[in-house]
Amino acid sequence: MLQKEDIAAAFRSLQDDICRALEQMDGTSLFHEDAWEMATGGGGRTRIIQGEHIEKGGVNFSAVEGPASEALKKLLGESGDRFFATGVSIVLHPSSPLVPIIHMNVRYFEMSEKVWWFGGGIDLTPHYIDKDEAQNFHRQLKETCDRTDSDYYPRFKKWADDYFYLKHRQETRGVGGIFFDRLNTDRESKTKAELFEFVMNVGRTFVPAYRAVFESNVQRDWTDSEKQWQYYRRGRYVEFNLVWDRGTRFGLETGGRTESILMSLPAQARWQYDFQPEEGTPEAETQNLLRKGIEWIG
Amino acid sequence: MLQKEDIAAAFRSLQDDICRALEQMDGTSLFHEDAWEMATGGGGRTRIIQGEHIEKGGVNFSAVEGPASEALKKLLGESGDRFFATGVSIVLHPSSPLVPIIHMNVRYFEMSEKVWWFGGGIDLTPHYIDKDEAQNFHRQLKETCDRTDSDYYPRFKKWADDYFYLKHRQETRGVGGIFFDRLNTDRESKTKAELFEFVMNVGRTFVPAYRAVFESNVQRDWTDSEKQWQYYRRGRYVEFNLVWDRGTRFGLETGGRTESILMSLPAQARWQYDFQPEEGTPEAETQNLLRKGIEWIG
Repeated sequence: MLQKEDIAAAFRSLQDDICRALEQMDGTSLFHEDAWEMATGGGGRTRIIQGEHIEKGGVNFSAVEGPASEALKKLLGESGDRFFATGVSIVLHPSSPLVPIIHMNVRYFEMSEKVWWFGGGIDLTPHYIDKDEAQNFHRQLKETCDRTDSDYYPRFKKWADDYFYLKHRQETRGVGGIFFDRLNTDRESKTKAELFEFVMNVGRTFVPAYRAVFESNVQRDWTDSEKQWQYYRRGRYVEFNLVWDRGTRFGLETGGRTESILMSLPAQARWQYDFQPEEGTPEAETQNLLRKGIEWIG
Repeated sequence: MLQKEDIAAAFRSLQDDICRALEQMDGTSLFHEDAWEMATGGGGRTRIIQGEHIEKGGVNFSAVEGPASEALKKLLGESGDRFFATGVSIVLHPSSPLVPIIHMNVRYFEMSEKVWWFGGGIDLTPHYIDKDEAQNFHRQLKETCDRTDSDYYPRFKKWADDYFYLKHRQETRGVGGIFFDRLNTDRESKTKAELFEFVMNVGRTFVPAYRAVFESNVQRDWTDSEKQWQYYRRGRYVEFNLVWDRGTRFGLETGGRTESILMSLPAQARWQYDFQPEEGTPEAETQNLLRKGIEWIG
């Protein structure tokens, strides 16, 4: 039987593999690691890169445990005395406005032998949406999903549209991707090992998926006005993470490690009252594509 | 008997007076106004200034009404069929890192003849805390409070410490000020007219209180490193407003006018992983003063 320690160990290795690949992609900087402990048990390794191409990137691993608080039990609607949670979380903010922001998360949660689940997702936030690029990104995710279940991509693609959504703007965060939560043997006709394999496949899809959008854009020149638009779009990223992202909010409200949680915020962001990109510009085209339900794969 | 229309009219005039004074203080720019209507009734006037000295400032007036939603009734723990709400909200982000950010709000809420209250507050967020300046600011607020009740300043000063608090950082937003909510004749030994007079006095304190910190600093030269610190401190302002500010969150979650609500965000902000100012610097000194319970008035 798959033990929580095995899952944590696999996630830890995944963090190592991803960091190595990203250091190679950036080519100018290495990750800085902060190892930290949680008072109630376990801890994590927060890794930050500040390179020439990846302006600010965080790849966080944690495996923590402790008594299940009333707040946690209420939030989850589950009972149990203790919890265990492990996962890898990534957000990369590139220097170039022509390279998309990317996010990936895989996680496992356990409260008792019967109460456990996997969750995770990957989503892409281009500052400038390129339809072919979005299509290619979604194709990679679909292939990963299809290896486990051909229902997964359509289900989890829709879930991402609904989750990565700025309700107050009626805008999606970017071109979406996949999102899933609370996958377990009760809800899915899968064994725990199969679900774990799926989640690890999602984790392993991160590097090739990001490499594709990174390498085709990182050498392109960009203008100051494209940079300004990037700052503006990053403002939306901040709004999503601080207002709507459940993981961020739960972490901040329950005394998680603030600097690890907020590693997802960009180095700089911009707000401008009632800004509207001029019609017919690439910025306006991107704005028009920030909506739910677009089937990127033909 | 004081009618809601009278209160709204007084708040509308207050907005006019404050905008005129701020245009004069900035001296380079005028407010731009967007008038808007709410589908269920009433509307507002959002006014934005983007000047040489006030980089981004918003002075919002609104008087809205409509059916009381279940969410609203649950949030307030009150019953009633319809609600009415009017108020003036201000946030100013100055260009100079040596001039503080300021916030002011006065508001009146009504759900029935018996269910109504006033709320509001003023608080100051210097990028660099100057103790004399903070003391002078608090003295002005105390004088305003004392005109109504000598208990108000200590009560509302503590309330501000607790409200303008970034729990996830264990940091206050700035040097505080006063905050109060749900003042009515049941809870205070005051008439409605007296409470209204108090709230208007708070509103009228805004201009002299801000003028004092603005005029003594606006002509001082500042360095790029001070500017960087300003961006960093603005990041905290964004965190407070999006994560903790009840008015902002309620507005965004219930379909308020997003651009009017988020006028409080700065033009630019910065995040840096695990940044700590060097000991002994003015930045570290400011950081050390971001805590509750400081009695600025000796």
